[in-house]
Amino acid sequence: MGLSEFDLIDRYFARCGAERPDVELGVGDDAALLIPAAGRRLAWATDTLVAGRHFPEGADAAAVGHKALAVNLSDLAAMGAEPAWATLALTLPEAEEAWLTGFATGLCDLATEHHLALVGGDTTGGPLTVTVGVAGFVDRPLRRDGARAGDGIWVTGEVGGGGIGLEAALDRLAAGASDRAALLDRYYRPQPRVAAGRALARWASAAVDVSDGLAADLGHILAASGVGATLEPGALPLAPSAVNAAGEAATREAALAGGDDYELVVTLPPEREGAAVEALAGLGLALTRIGTIEPEPGLRGREADGRVAPLVAGGHDHFRRDP
Amino acid sequence: MGLSEFDLIDRYFARCGAERPDVELGVGDDAALLIPAAGRRLAWATDTLVAGRHFPEGADAAAVGHKALAVNLSDLAAMGAEPAWATLALTLPEAEEAWLTGFATGLCDLATEHHLALVGGDTTGGPLTVTVGVAGFVDRPLRRDGARAGDGIWVTGEVGGGGIGLEAALDRLAAGASDRAALLDRYYRPQPRVAAGRALARWASAAVDVSDGLAADLGHILAASGVGATLEPGALPLAPSAVNAAGEAATREAALAGGDDYELVVTLPPEREGAAVEALAGLGLALTRIGTIEPEPGLRGREADGRVAPLVAGGHDHFRRDP
Repeated sequence: MGLSEFDLIDRYFARCGAERPDVELGVGDDAALLIPAAGRRLAWATDTLVAGRHFPEGADAAAVGHKALAVNLSDLAAMGAEPAWATLALTLPEAEEAWLTGFATGLCDLATEHHLALVGGDTTGGPLTVTVGVAGFVDRPLRRDGARAGDGIWVTGEVGGGGIGLEAALDRLAAGASDRAALLDRYYRPQPRVAAGRALARWASAAVDVSDGLAADLGHILAASGVGATLEPGALPLAPSAVNAAGEAATREAALAGGDDYELVVTLPPEREGAAVEALAGLGLALTRIGTIEPEPGLRGREADGRVAPLVAGGHDHFRRDP
Repeated sequence: MGLSEFDLIDRYFARCGAERPDVELGVGDDAALLIPAAGRRLAWATDTLVAGRHFPEGADAAAVGHKALAVNLSDLAAMGAEPAWATLALTLPEAEEAWLTGFATGLCDLATEHHLALVGGDTTGGPLTVTVGVAGFVDRPLRRDGARAGDGIWVTGEVGGGGIGLEAALDRLAAGASDRAALLDRYYRPQPRVAAGRALARWASAAVDVSDGLAADLGHILAASGVGATLEPGALPLAPSAVNAAGEAATREAALAGGDDYELVVTLPPEREGAAVEALAGLGLALTRIGTIEPEPGLRGREADGRVAPLVAGGHDHFRRDP
């Protein structure tokens, strides 16, 4: 191959994503030089994808590039932030041009779509690992610690498709062609809810993105806010392709404990529910009520017969699960 | 063990580094919330260390933590920036408490020393890989593209100790106890030249940090500035412990092509040399003239007999070298 790391970065990532006037100096110096917007706060997040853990070995390069940025944009979405800049730290076993071209396409196309500029990075040799850092501007931050008893719990879009999509990606699932395509798309190409997060920032009391399963992610809101909740598992907006392929019970379990959905869970004071639903409808996205915040700590589920019992769902622990 | 990733981050990194009033929300939400200083630019860099590539497998955890942050601070130093915030993306095979305690100590102590707050991160399971992102404020950026023919080329501190230090770390070198200790310290605990970078920002026309060897790193300045240079290899301020242990020729080669020194190379217009040397003397750090920027492209070396010949030194390519 003979491409040194410097060539790699310059060649594939020098012009990646949007051109932004607030980037004084992008890829190619010791650090990027950026001009923060006056008077706005900055939200900054970072997330890593490891081959064989967060995506199957041999996954399509463009999908890996897309997903590596998408999971980070999902964190900005959950803060109600407007994406601005990203860095890429790419560790890969060999500098294979076809793979890099695909990876860069997946990542840079999503960056462009979100008006985000890739401003720097590092390329190293080693086991395939992708760490993206993202920063964006935020005026009304959607924190985890603002949920209050009486708030409704709402989720954007559809859930369960990410977890069942992983089963499809691993060929552990018999599914019709169109369901399979929808599930793979859901798993490999999650659409970060950036516009939804910005719209909800005006109304929601707390938010988190669903990366590790609804139960675990909602648990972060409960812990940070010092409250509890009762979920209505029967109310979850399950992805139809997942229900078709895996059945309702497995899809519900995937939504609660499987992860990879990258929808937003928000809490809304009752008087703001209407405005929030309307705002998301304007974006073509459903917002579904799935439970209620309560003063009593813990996460409960209301079963079909109306009984309420502790909800046990492990969520996604990166030290235990291997796809 | 039984520590989930959430516990890990909270337990070891929730309070890491300095407390800063510009951190509205640190570790523990979907993103950190930061308040950029009005009217100042932001420098942002990221660098990855991979076990078995950038440090030997089995290296002391505190040294890995220190070095992972130090190499990033060195990038900020090379921009003349004042460190402010960092993120940590840590991929590790298992959540071993003793290792994590040591790692956090190494990283967080260096963060505190540089008034830097760790504001977020991600912990994942997989082969040991550490990606740190750093951001800081900069008023007069030290870019790579400002060198002009006639400028002197100068280097801070001592060089060659990093590359020879790697040999010591791999037990490939016979050295006396005190030289060995100095070399290991140099390799494992580089001191990023943050104060020097900020001081030099006032005088230098270009700068880069020496991570991959003087020849390769100076090459970035030459390429970005559209100039060439003649180095005086005999003028390099070689680390005495390295010369003692490995001899002058090997130390010079390590300085030129070995990397891991994390000194700064700057170019200085002649009329500013005195002020720059004086500024660094105030910091207790040597600044040594090692060559001259010239209009003719390429990197040349002036040999002991005065002859000038192309300088061939590969630099450090992360796809070729395994320690």
